[in-house]
Amino acid sequence: MTPADDASVTPAEHESSVRRDFRVGLLGHGTVGAAFEAQLAEHADRIERITGLRPVLSGVLTRSRGSFEEILESSDLIVELIGGIEPARGYLLRALRAGRHVVTANKQLLSQFGEELWETAREHDMQLRFEGAVAGVVPVIRVLQESLAGATIDRVHGIVNGTTNFVLTEMARTGMTFEQALAEAQRLGYAEADPSEDVDGRDAAAKMAILARLAFDTPVRLDQVTYEGIEQIQPDDLEYAHELGLELKLLGTAERIGEGLSVRVHPAFLYPGHPLASVSGPFNAVTVESEAITEITMSGPGAGGPQTASAVLGDVISAMIPPASTPATSAVLEIVQDVVSSFYLHLEVADEPGVLAAVAAALAAHGVSVKSVVQKGLGEQARLVMVLHPVLESQFFAAADTISQLEVLRAPPRAIRVIEEEFS
Amino acid sequence: MTPADDASVTPAEHESSVRRDFRVGLLGHGTVGAAFEAQLAEHADRIERITGLRPVLSGVLTRSRGSFEEILESSDLIVELIGGIEPARGYLLRALRAGRHVVTANKQLLSQFGEELWETAREHDMQLRFEGAVAGVVPVIRVLQESLAGATIDRVHGIVNGTTNFVLTEMARTGMTFEQALAEAQRLGYAEADPSEDVDGRDAAAKMAILARLAFDTPVRLDQVTYEGIEQIQPDDLEYAHELGLELKLLGTAERIGEGLSVRVHPAFLYPGHPLASVSGPFNAVTVESEAITEITMSGPGAGGPQTASAVLGDVISAMIPPASTPATSAVLEIVQDVVSSFYLHLEVADEPGVLAAVAAALAAHGVSVKSVVQKGLGEQARLVMVLHPVLESQFFAAADTISQLEVLRAPPRAIRVIEEEFS
Repeated sequence: MTPADDASVTPAEHESSVRRDFRVGLLGHGTVGAAFEAQLAEHADRIERITGLRPVLSGVLTRSRGSFEEILESSDLIVELIGGIEPARGYLLRALRAGRHVVTANKQLLSQFGEELWETAREHDMQLRFEGAVAGVVPVIRVLQESLAGATIDRVHGIVNGTTNFVLTEMARTGMTFEQALAEAQRLGYAEADPSEDVDGRDAAAKMAILARLAFDTPVRLDQVTYEGIEQIQPDDLEYAHELGLELKLLGTAERIGEGLSVRVHPAFLYPGHPLASVSGPFNAVTVESEAITEITMSGPGAGGPQTASAVLGDVISAMIPPASTPATSAVLEIVQDVVSSFYLHLEVADEPGVLAAVAAALAAHGVSVKSVVQKGLGEQARLVMVLHPVLESQFFAAADTISQLEVLRAPPRAIRVIEEEFS
Repeated sequence: MTPADDASVTPAEHESSVRRDFRVGLLGHGTVGAAFEAQLAEHADRIERITGLRPVLSGVLTRSRGSFEEILESSDLIVELIGGIEPARGYLLRALRAGRHVVTANKQLLSQFGEELWETAREHDMQLRFEGAVAGVVPVIRVLQESLAGATIDRVHGIVNGTTNFVLTEMARTGMTFEQALAEAQRLGYAEADPSEDVDGRDAAAKMAILARLAFDTPVRLDQVTYEGIEQIQPDDLEYAHELGLELKLLGTAERIGEGLSVRVHPAFLYPGHPLASVSGPFNAVTVESEAITEITMSGPGAGGPQTASAVLGDVISAMIPPASTPATSAVLEIVQDVVSSFYLHLEVADEPGVLAAVAAALAAHGVSVKSVVQKGLGEQARLVMVLHPVLESQFFAAADTISQLEVLRAPPRAIRVIEEEFS
């Protein structure tokens, strides 16, 4: 754009100045609500490009400020992050009846009054989305409702409470008692000041009720879910589990049993090959089993402010757009061909003095440094196996090329990349 | 309904007799196509209930029968399972221009002509869905397009080729060479007769091009993806990996690097804590990283006939329905409270003869049998730790109640369920 262009308005600019807003009313402004407000502002441009509508916050209701009536009047969609039954239930019913879409992360409400809300949404042809209610940003709700709408599901297994999974992981890792591990979870922000609904299994039971409703097309209320918590787990239970090669998890289960459905939450030992056995720390994961699909597993961080807010934002965007358009590209990135990598380097070498020095010199000449090296075998079996520090791949390949020309090499070098990150 | 009702027609029955069909034209009838046809028929009733429309197969095009023009004319949606570039590309462009929704699982086509197809779909306001193109039923496409539409993604890592993951798993497990493990994969149906696009990394590269396009909003063609395969991997690479505690995977990566984007596929060592390190056999998995969500991982069986067909069917259903309605429940299952479980039973017992006999008798009286038992400690530390065979929980709890009343018990029994299944 030349400076002169600044003064005039092109047709495209004129059109964008008559922008169309999508007004989002926010109920509740705790950790998740504040994170949602920030993310909505941060991604407004991108969302406008995807949806053709610009999301704007039309009002915020907290205990001390805002009027529900005013927010309802000025919104196209209501985001409910208050939690608990009332006044959340009343607000959402009124919003749906007034023709507003609703996004909520309220597991207590859905596990007790879900049918009433879903029926109201259907009657008024409004969307009621709730990805944030179970497993934070792990997209279990959408997958059950959409991807697997055509599958007959046999069982859903879930680790759906991050607090208890963190506590069990810490107990297994350190030998701590339940009380000590819970205190540690509170210190790190993985457990609330009053963690009773988490540790007694009730929080997980509410989430399993919601998942069971979707997976098995059967109304499930929280009071039909049997649940046990983890307060009674002793350090030596975990010790024996370790001896037996088992992992202890607070496991939610919803499964078809003949013409019946069992929904329950209890601690359970898992064999190491189970897809949920390796889910540790505050993570959540859900496995869905069906004859047609075998099983799929989804995992990720459980409810945290930014994660749950991200799930809520995904729901808001979904409510704004017609399904499944792949928008034209915009923020076009340049395709990069040379990246930084670590390498494992396997060299079959002559069994003679000076070999390591020659190889090390070739690496150093190209700025490649050695992290670890093992010399193995004798005579015709002699090998140097090394792991190198990260460098641009072009540097590494230049070094490998130099090395391949060394007389002491008995075969071409073999290189494999090493992904250095470890996840907890 | 009384017998007399059979003779009359209620308004609801009349309405359902004027049923509305949703006509699906199928191009291609190989393994996936045949599985799709079977699943569509099997789930037609359920889909009609969810969507209000009854899916019917309006025609099938194979090499030897059917006419594309006739199928196009008589369909609301075209499912393309031919594979390859032409004639698939021409058919899909014509279908979109004729106002038909399209569902495809064709990774080659999308990784080379995706922009053309997506643009045509947008121009004609038609849906173009392609969940089956990447990682079978693992819902990575939907999650990137919808759940994460509001997130700024930093990196996508994927194990997106089941053949190579099976081969690497077998090599690591048995010490086989690449050629031997590939032959085993072919014998078990995990590799095609001509596996060259799988083992040289090109298949994974096409899938990563599609994922990168969606995650980073940047057009990515297959020829911009650098890739290496696994043909050169030697058994002793896996041996050294094992010594170092690493897992070797054929890893796809799409990541933001400054203002650039790198998309690549190559073998890589992973540390054990990496979310993809435990993905073994023919499974696929994708991890998406973003600051707001930390990371989420989705895993499941890679492309198999029924799995890919299930992904395709999910796309068809999504194209049929307005988004995110939670339909009224129908096939209502009874909620079951008593289920079959295995238990770990931890007993603090008196250190005297006859204790095991007394406990075993109490278990047997309630029909509970012992799978394994360990006697530990002496005196005040004496313990019996047992794992029991599965029984109805009511039986187990009755037995535990009897045991708790034995005089030889020094503390209440402790019981934890054991999930017996092992997954490969």
